[in-house]
Amino acid sequence: MSQKRLADLNACSTNDFVAALANVFEYSPWIAERAAAARPFAGVTQLFEAMTAAVDQAAPERRLALIKAHPDLADKTQRAEGLTAESSGEQNSVGLDRLSDAEYEAFGRVNDAYRAKFGFPYIVCVRRQTKDSILRDFERRLPNDADAEMQRSIEEISRIAALRLDALVTSDDRLKVHGRLSTHVLDTHGGRPAAGIALELVELSDRGAARVVTRAITNADGRTDQPLIHDRPVPIGRYELTFSVGRYFADREVALSDPPFLDRIPLRFSVSEPEGHLHVPLLVTPWSYATYRGS
Amino acid sequence: MSQKRLADLNACSTNDFVAALANVFEYSPWIAERAAAARPFAGVTQLFEAMTAAVDQAAPERRLALIKAHPDLADKTQRAEGLTAESSGEQNSVGLDRLSDAEYEAFGRVNDAYRAKFGFPYIVCVRRQTKDSILRDFERRLPNDADAEMQRSIEEISRIAALRLDALVTSDDRLKVHGRLSTHVLDTHGGRPAAGIALELVELSDRGAARVVTRAITNADGRTDQPLIHDRPVPIGRYELTFSVGRYFADREVALSDPPFLDRIPLRFSVSEPEGHLHVPLLVTPWSYATYRGS
Amino acid sequence: MSQKRLADLNACSTNDFVAALANVFEYSPWIAERAAAARPFAGVTQLFEAMTAAVDQAAPERRLALIKAHPDLADKTQRAEGLTAESSGEQNSVGLDRLSDAEYEAFGRVNDAYRAKFGFPYIVCVRRQTKDSILRDFERRLPNDADAEMQRSIEEISRIAALRLDALVTSDDRLKVHGRLSTHVLDTHGGRPAAGIALELVELSDRGAARVVTRAITNADGRTDQPLIHDRPVPIGRYELTFSVGRYFADREVALSDPPFLDRIPLRFSVSEPEGHLHVPLLVTPWSYATYRGS
Amino acid sequence: MSQKRLADLNACSTNDFVAALANVFEYSPWIAERAAAARPFAGVTQLFEAMTAAVDQAAPERRLALIKAHPDLADKTQRAEGLTAESSGEQNSVGLDRLSDAEYEAFGRVNDAYRAKFGFPYIVCVRRQTKDSILRDFERRLPNDADAEMQRSIEEISRIAALRLDALVTSDDRLKVHGRLSTHVLDTHGGRPAAGIALELVELSDRGAARVVTRAITNADGRTDQPLIHDRPVPIGRYELTFSVGRYFADREVALSDPPFLDRIPLRFSVSEPEGHLHVPLLVTPWSYATYRGS
Repeated sequence: MSQKRLADLNACSTNDFVAALANVFEYSPWIAERAAAARPFAGVTQLFEAMTAAVDQAAPERRLALIKAHPDLADKTQRAEGLTAESSGEQNSVGLDRLSDAEYEAFGRVNDAYRAKFGFPYIVCVRRQTKDSILRDFERRLPNDADAEMQRSIEEISRIAALRLDALVTSDDRLKVHGRLSTHVLDTHGGRPAAGIALELVELSDRGAARVVTRAITNADGRTDQPLIHDRPVPIGRYELTFSVGRYFADREVALSDPPFLDRIPLRFSVSEPEGHLHVPLLVTPWSYATYRGS
Repeated sequence: MSQKRLADLNACSTNDFVAALANVFEYSPWIAERAAAARPFAGVTQLFEAMTAAVDQAAPERRLALIKAHPDLADKTQRAEGLTAESSGEQNSVGLDRLSDAEYEAFGRVNDAYRAKFGFPYIVCVRRQTKDSILRDFERRLPNDADAEMQRSIEEISRIAALRLDALVTSDDRLKVHGRLSTHVLDTHGGRPAAGIALELVELSDRGAARVVTRAITNADGRTDQPLIHDRPVPIGRYELTFSVGRYFADREVALSDPPFLDRIPLRFSVSEPEGHLHVPLLVTPWSYATYRGS
Repeated sequence: MSQKRLADLNACSTNDFVAALANVFEYSPWIAERAAAARPFAGVTQLFEAMTAAVDQAAPERRLALIKAHPDLADKTQRAEGLTAESSGEQNSVGLDRLSDAEYEAFGRVNDAYRAKFGFPYIVCVRRQTKDSILRDFERRLPNDADAEMQRSIEEISRIAALRLDALVTSDDRLKVHGRLSTHVLDTHGGRPAAGIALELVELSDRGAARVVTRAITNADGRTDQPLIHDRPVPIGRYELTFSVGRYFADREVALSDPPFLDRIPLRFSVSEPEGHLHVPLLVTPWSYATYRGS
Repeated sequence: MSQKRLADLNACSTNDFVAALANVFEYSPWIAERAAAARPFAGVTQLFEAMTAAVDQAAPERRLALIKAHPDLADKTQRAEGLTAESSGEQNSVGLDRLSDAEYEAFGRVNDAYRAKFGFPYIVCVRRQTKDSILRDFERRLPNDADAEMQRSIEEISRIAALRLDALVTSDDRLKVHGRLSTHVLDTHGGRPAAGIALELVELSDRGAARVVTRAITNADGRTDQPLIHDRPVPIGRYELTFSVGRYFADREVALSDPPFLDRIPLRFSVSEPEGHLHVPLLVTPWSYATYRGS
C-alpha cells in the first residue's frame, strides 16, 4: 500500500479520498466519506479526529456494524478467505500466524466465548499486544456488559485505525502511536560505556516458547545503534533482556573468578505503555549490577 | 554410619580405630592404620593431617592403587555392584543417580577417554561440583600429563576424605569443608527488610533440565531462616535465584504499572569457591533493583 | 556510681533499695519507695515497670513536683550548684557543657519561654538528642497545652530514668534503651569487602560547628571493629559519614583518573529512632557508589 | 572583541588578518603573519593547525620570547598595567581577581619560585583549571628541567590560543575546546524522572572558601534545562553537587522518617578532563541513592 501525502488527500476528489482511506476502519468506507466533507486538514491528527468523530456520531446500529465487520482473532477459516490486507498484516505481527495448535485452541475458545456472550467478535489492537496480554485482556473484558464492550471495542478499533492511518499518510505532524524500548550498558568497573556487549531481547510467554525480538551489540556509547523496539507500539507483555558481560570483562583482562560470578545477566520486566519511552539500562561490574526504569 | 567422638577414637584399640576410619579413603584402611600410630590427636584437623601425611609418604605404587580403588563416575554397571556406601551417597548428591540417557553417555565418554589415556579412573570430589562443572573439569584435565593427574587425583581424594571425616568424627574443631550461600532482600522503596518474599534457587545446566535446590520465604529481617545452602560445600556451578517481588509490592498497595514493571526477578550467578561464604542480596523497589557479591 | 546486681536489690533492706535507686528519677526517692514494696523483680524490665507505675499512679501534684525537680537545660547558674551527678553527666554527653555563647543564649531562650508558658522546666532526654534536635523538639512542643506537656514531660523523664536504671542495675534482661549505628564498605570493583578504608563520623549542626563522633578503619570484613555508635541511644540528628576511597583504590593500583573521580565520599543522613539499629553501607568502585538504609 | 567569520578572514588583506588574530597568541602577531600565508583555510581547525605549526617551526629564541610575553599569574602589579584584554578575562574566570590575601601570597610564591628557577613565567591555561588545580600543577612542574618546561609552556599557550580562537572565529567546524558537566535525577521510588529538585554545584577548595558555580531546578525530564557547565572547558578540580531530595519526597506525600533519613544529598567528585562530557546522575529513593560517572 503506497503512502499518500496529506496535501494530496486534501486536494483530490472525494472518490479518491475515500478509496485511499477506505480500510483505515475495517470494511467501512462510510467513515472516510464523512471525514472527506471536513477537508482540508491541517495535519494527520486533525484528519484522524474527523474520522473518529464520524464514528462517535454514527447511529448505534452503524457502530455495531463496524464492530461486526472485524474478523475473529486467529480464526483459521477466515484466514484463508477474506481478511483485509491490513488486518492480516497486523495479526501476523504478534505471531498469530505462528500459533501452536494449543494456542489456536486457546484463541478459538476466546473468540467463541466472547461472541457467544456479546454477539460480536472480540476486538483488540494486536500490534499493542503480545499473545499473553491478549488472553489477559480477554479474561478481563469477558465479565463486562455489552454497552461497556461496545465502547471498548470502538476504542480498540480507533487504535487500529490510528496505526493504519499513520502508516498510510505522511504529514508534518505524526500521530502518537509509537513507543520506544532502549537500553544502555555502563561499565562501572572501568568508568566508561560498555562497548561490544552482545545482548538479546526475548518476549516471554506463559504459554508456548519465548520469541527472540532482536539481538544487538552495544556501540562505543554503550547503546545500541537503534532502539531495541521503535517506530511502532511496544507490545504490552513480559520481556527478558540478556547481556553477555562475562565475555566483555574477560576480553578486557579483568581479574575474574572461575567460572565468572556474572556471565549472562538477564533483566526481566514488563511493558505496560505501548506508546511510552521505556529505557532499561544496566550498570555493571564483574561483581555487581543494577537496573532501573528510565525514560 | 554413626558418628564417633574424637576422644573415643583417641582411646580405642588400633583395630577399632582402623575399622571406624577404613573408608575415609576409599577401600584403603592402610591410611587409617598409619595414622593410628600418631594418636592422640588434639583435634580432627590434626587427625586429617596425619591421614594425608600417610598418603603423601606412601610409595608411588601405593598411591596409584589408592587412585585405582575409586569407582568410575556414573558407571551404571558398578552402581549395581560394589560402591562403598560413602561413594554412592556422594555421587547421588550431585544428581548422578538421576542422569538422563544423554548425560550417562556424556559421563561414560568422560570415564572412558580418561581411563584410556591415564590407566586410572577420573576422580573428582563430586559434592563440590555440579554436573556441568564436572564435565568442564574433565575437559580441562584430560590434556594434562600423567604425573599432574596423579597429583590432582590425590588432591580430589583428599577432599573426598575430608568431607567423609567431617561427617564421621565429632571434635571441638571442624574441618573447613563447608561453604554457605545466603541472600537478603532489602525493600529500598519502604526503607526496610522485605519480609514474605517467595524465592527459589535453581541450579542451571547447559545440558538437561534446571534443578530446584531450595525454595524459601524471607523472614522479618529480609533473610531466609536458613542459608540457601549451608553445612556442605556449595557446588561449583551456575545458579538462578528468583524473587517474587511483584506480589510483595502489590500486597503493600504500592502503586504499580499493569502489568508490574518488575514481577519475578532472576539473579544468575556462578559459584567458584565451594568452601566460601557467598552472599547475594537484592535491593529492590518496584522500578529498580541491584545485586552484588557480598560476604 | 557502682553497679548493683538485681538479685542484691531484691534481697536488701528497703532503705538500701531506696538509697540505691533514689536518683533514677531526679530527686524523687518516693518512686523507689513505692517500687520496693513490689519486690522481688524477675528482671530489670519488671523493676522499671514498677517504678513507672508508681509515677503513673501518683497524684497530679506529685507528678508536677517530679517535673519541677528537673534542672533547666544548659543553665549556667544551676551548673555551678546543684545538678545531680546523673543529670550533669547526661547534659555533658550531648555537648551542653561546650555550648558557644550564641548557643547558650538559644537554649536560655528555650528555657525561659517554656517556663514562662508552663510554669515548669522544659525536659527532654538529652542522651537521645543532639543540640539541633533539642531546639526542634522545643519548637514543636511550645505550642502544646499544659496537659499535653505534663504528659510529654513524664515520658521524657521515664526515658531518662530507663537509661539511668540500665546503667545502674545488672540483670539477665536488659532495658531496650540502646541503639546502634553501623557501616560496611563493599568494594564492588574487586568483589570483596573493602579493608583499610579510613572513615569519619561527624554530627552536623545548623548552628555552630560539626562535631567528630568517631574515626575508624575498616577491617578485613569491610566493617568497623565496633559499631560507630553502640551501647547507648543513637542521638536524633543529622550526620555525615565520610569514606576515604581514593587512597584505598590508589593503594591497590587500580587505574584512576587524575585527580581521582571519587576521593572522600560523604554520606549525609539523619537518625530518627535512637533505639533502632541503623546500618549505612557503602558499595563503591572508583567510578560509582551507592548507599541505603539497612538494618 | 567582535567575532569574525572564517570566510572573511580568508578573503581579507594580510594586515587585516594579522590585526584580527594578533593576540590569539599573547603579544605575538608574528604567528598570525606566518599563518596568513597558508590561506585559505577549510575550517578553523586548519587555521589553528597553521598557527601552532608556526610556533613549532619558530627558532628557540622566538619560542622563548613567546613564553616571556605572558604575564605572571595573579600579579597585582601587572594587573593595574598592561595585561591584554584576553589575558585579564581568562584570569578572572578562575577567580584570580577575587583571591584572598593568603591566596595572593601563595600564587606569588608560585610565580617567584618558578621564575627564579626557569627565568620565565609559570604559564597554565587557567580556564581549564581551578585555584587548587593550578597550585597542584605548579608543584608537579617545578621539579622539571627547563627543556621540559619550555615544551610544557608551549602546550599551555596553545590551549590558551585555541580558546581565544574559538571565541573569535566562527566557522562550520569547531575546535574541541569545550566540555560539559550534566546531571539527571531519577526517582526510583516512583519510577519516574524527579522534577523540581533544587540542586547546587559548588567548586571546593583546599584553601579558602567553596564557590557556588550554579544553582538549578530539575525539569520534567529530571535534567537541568542547561548542562551545569557547558560551552567552555570544565575546570579541573573538586566539586560538590547537592540535591534537595527531602523536600521533593515530602511534597509528594511519601511516608518519611522524622527527620527524613535523606534530605540534602551531596555528591563529591573531581573533574580531570576539561574537554570531556561528564555526567553525574542521581538515582534516589527516600532510603537509598546511587551515582556513577556517566557520559
